[in-house]
Amino acid sequence: MTTARYYHAGCPVCVEAEQTLLNLLDPNVQVEVVHLGNVPSRIAEAEAAGVKSVPALVVGSQVLHLNFGAAIADLK
Amino acid sequence: MTTARYYHAGCPVCVEAEQTLLNLLDPNVQVEVVHLGNVPSRIAEAEAAGVKSVPALVVGSQVLHLNFGAAIADLK
Repeated sequence: MTTARYYHAGCPVCVEAEQTLLNLLDPNVQVEVVHLGNVPSRIAEAEAAGVKSVPALVVGSQVLHLNFGAAIADLK
Repeated sequence: MTTARYYHAGCPVCVEAEQTLLNLLDPNVQVEVVHLGNVPSRIAEAEAAGVKSVPALVVGSQVLHLNFGAAIADLK
């Protein structure tokens, strides 16, 4: 089982990318969706993982920034 | 069967994103990998699909730009 975290902020770009991406993923990939607007306490965790903007998918040590919704600095 | 096109230009960012992403996809998603550096004749097709930079994944009418390797204008 692979786990991934999808960080977003509820923005239109975030929602669209989520719908596109999550539909394509292997059913064995377990994705935790984290809305940083609702859970700002996890912004530091996202930054530590290398997230510069949302939406972004973190898998292991890899970060995939998907399109551009908002800079993480703007969520603080 | 869902089909997608992964446009890239052989850059390090492109290769890393490809490895990360393609490992996560549903086996039922058929991905055509298009190296625009090798097949510049398809740059226009990528642009028409909305690709602004590589690497990018195109699924139906949706474009996911993954991180940033190179602007498509720089591939011409």
